[in-house]
Amino acid sequence: MSTPTIITCKAAVAWEAGKPLSIEDVEVAPPQAGEVRIKILYTGICHTDAYTLSGKDPEGAFPVILGHEGGGIVESIGEGVDNVKVGDHVIPLYTAECRECKFCQSGKTNLCGKVRTTQGKGVMPDGTTRFKCKGQDILHFMGTSTFSQYTVVSKFSVVAINPKAPLEKACLLGCGITTGYGALTKTPGIEDSIVAVFGIGCVGLSILQGCKAKGCKRVFAVDTNPKKEEWAKKFGATDFVNPKDLPDGKTITQYLIDETDGGCDFTYDATGNVDVMRSALEACHKGWGVSTIIGVAPAGAEISTRPFQLVTGRVWRGSAFGGVKGRTELPGIVEDYMNRILWVDEFVTHHQPLDKINEGFDDMHAGDCIRCVVNMGFE
Amino acid sequence: MSTPTIITCKAAVAWEAGKPLSIEDVEVAPPQAGEVRIKILYTGICHTDAYTLSGKDPEGAFPVILGHEGGGIVESIGEGVDNVKVGDHVIPLYTAECRECKFCQSGKTNLCGKVRTTQGKGVMPDGTTRFKCKGQDILHFMGTSTFSQYTVVSKFSVVAINPKAPLEKACLLGCGITTGYGALTKTPGIEDSIVAVFGIGCVGLSILQGCKAKGCKRVFAVDTNPKKEEWAKKFGATDFVNPKDLPDGKTITQYLIDETDGGCDFTYDATGNVDVMRSALEACHKGWGVSTIIGVAPAGAEISTRPFQLVTGRVWRGSAFGGVKGRTELPGIVEDYMNRILWVDEFVTHHQPLDKINEGFDDMHAGDCIRCVVNMGFE
Repeated sequence: MSTPTIITCKAAVAWEAGKPLSIEDVEVAPPQAGEVRIKILYTGICHTDAYTLSGKDPEGAFPVILGHEGGGIVESIGEGVDNVKVGDHVIPLYTAECRECKFCQSGKTNLCGKVRTTQGKGVMPDGTTRFKCKGQDILHFMGTSTFSQYTVVSKFSVVAINPKAPLEKACLLGCGITTGYGALTKTPGIEDSIVAVFGIGCVGLSILQGCKAKGCKRVFAVDTNPKKEEWAKKFGATDFVNPKDLPDGKTITQYLIDETDGGCDFTYDATGNVDVMRSALEACHKGWGVSTIIGVAPAGAEISTRPFQLVTGRVWRGSAFGGVKGRTELPGIVEDYMNRILWVDEFVTHHQPLDKINEGFDDMHAGDCIRCVVNMGFE
Repeated sequence: MSTPTIITCKAAVAWEAGKPLSIEDVEVAPPQAGEVRIKILYTGICHTDAYTLSGKDPEGAFPVILGHEGGGIVESIGEGVDNVKVGDHVIPLYTAECRECKFCQSGKTNLCGKVRTTQGKGVMPDGTTRFKCKGQDILHFMGTSTFSQYTVVSKFSVVAINPKAPLEKACLLGCGITTGYGALTKTPGIEDSIVAVFGIGCVGLSILQGCKAKGCKRVFAVDTNPKKEEWAKKFGATDFVNPKDLPDGKTITQYLIDETDGGCDFTYDATGNVDVMRSALEACHKGWGVSTIIGVAPAGAEISTRPFQLVTGRVWRGSAFGGVKGRTELPGIVEDYMNRILWVDEFVTHHQPLDKINEGFDDMHAGDCIRCVVNMGFE
């Protein structure tokens, strides 16, 4: 194995908040001990990228290479990397899994504490960055930075998957689809239940896929965009409800309670809107309904309800990356994809080459887009 | 068995909100089909009685006979009552258990739907009341009305207990003690955990008793009243924290996070204060902390937090009557009391005869009172 050297490649750099990305030549340093350099073939664009780029994310720092929904091939590895090898098809993980920290060892959560602090600061675990552009250090993002043809990640932030899975689709398992599918399928007692899903984007549709996989008996898809009805029903919803179309000014909460003789067993918010989160909780059945928050709310926004809602047996919880432990569980989700239990191809509505990535952001905000996949230029 | 007739006895009547109770001669009608008439020997006074009497409870209706923490003996039964018999020592249950409704049959909750609507209106299931005073109908309260020497309850709202249990103590298992002890002991995974209990009154102390019974490894008791430290430690707390005494203006949330390397596994609010409920949630450990709301908040008060608190793995839930199914599980809690696993005698700090019940309300608001038990005048 030859010693890795600096690679100069194309990347979409976010120089400052609120400005379009710039395609630049960046220098990507070799992986250090415990690090992996990945050739990114494809990447999705997610709302979280747009949120940070907008400047509304109080933790967003610039200049940075965004992107966290990628698929690629290991180009080189640093000392002490034993979980992936050169040539492996991999998905970078913004939710790391070290298997060593208090969180990983608890067996109760997929959150990992190992690289969290440095990841939040946009640097590698040693406190430095592997990206340079025009002589300037460029920050990492979510420990993944998939908007670069080559990126460097911690060995805890990458998992090898079945090489037969096409990366131009499987990249989406790096965030949105896994977030929804995992959140649903990992909910205890979800089988044969009544579910409502608020927000029918990529995450919401993948929750619906989970409902189908788990045999939920009635599945309400809730969205204010009527175009989502066809999508929702195709992906597994039994009912579509547009809260703007309810008779007599009925609230969505009251509608769902009336339709289900008391409320839903499980509800999921995939909107990031705190008012919707409240509706989702209050549409749960007294005594046992569980509401899961998945969407990311704007900075400073708060959820609220009367405590009586909880005292009478509803549970309010949340989920990040679908509760999925990336290194341990993502390969199984890729197999669900390969076996057509979980659709992935159907989520890809738009394509862009790397040099048109800004148009991909525009696509995302159009109502008819589920996911835009960016081709990084190798295939 | 002779046919039951009207009994005239003493009761404390709440004629209107915000006024003291009046000791009156009331007529108690015989139990109808599915009803049980109970001679109440002792009753506790609980904050919920005071809340409704104050007029702040938007559902409070008058005139009414309050009281829901009683112990007594079955005096007579109506047709079709087969779960208790004349002479049984019993505890009235404000959380009924019919074993027939959707809730009871779900196996997921102790809430019961059978008598809920009429109970909320202050009447028996047939829509009428069994109490008359000065020619006027007097309403029932919480399906129990234990501030009367004789009361009538639904057969679903009463459970027979071990007759060796002294009713002047066991009456407290009708509300406060069971609420705290049940909420703690029925929490999955509570063993060997780090717990914080906010509010060290009757409910808080009984949560501490649960911690002792379950072997929790570190138990923080939190109260702004320094007199509660001695009580808390006697009942099972390992640490007492007064949020007003923290150095450098540290919040109780931050203090608990620092002391526990990340937060508590489980927290319980027994204050009814929505700001405290938030602190209790946010003092939970990321990834798995569970916060349970037990206290009853003032009408209209709302809880709130950033959704990020839930997305990063904390769970917000609540509990009513400790999650205990009264007919099925309360006899076992009485056995815990008889076996000294659960202290009850130690909660009784004050006594009053029925004709001084208003002084019992004053006792309750004094900082040195845990529970005042009212002797109904038969012993």
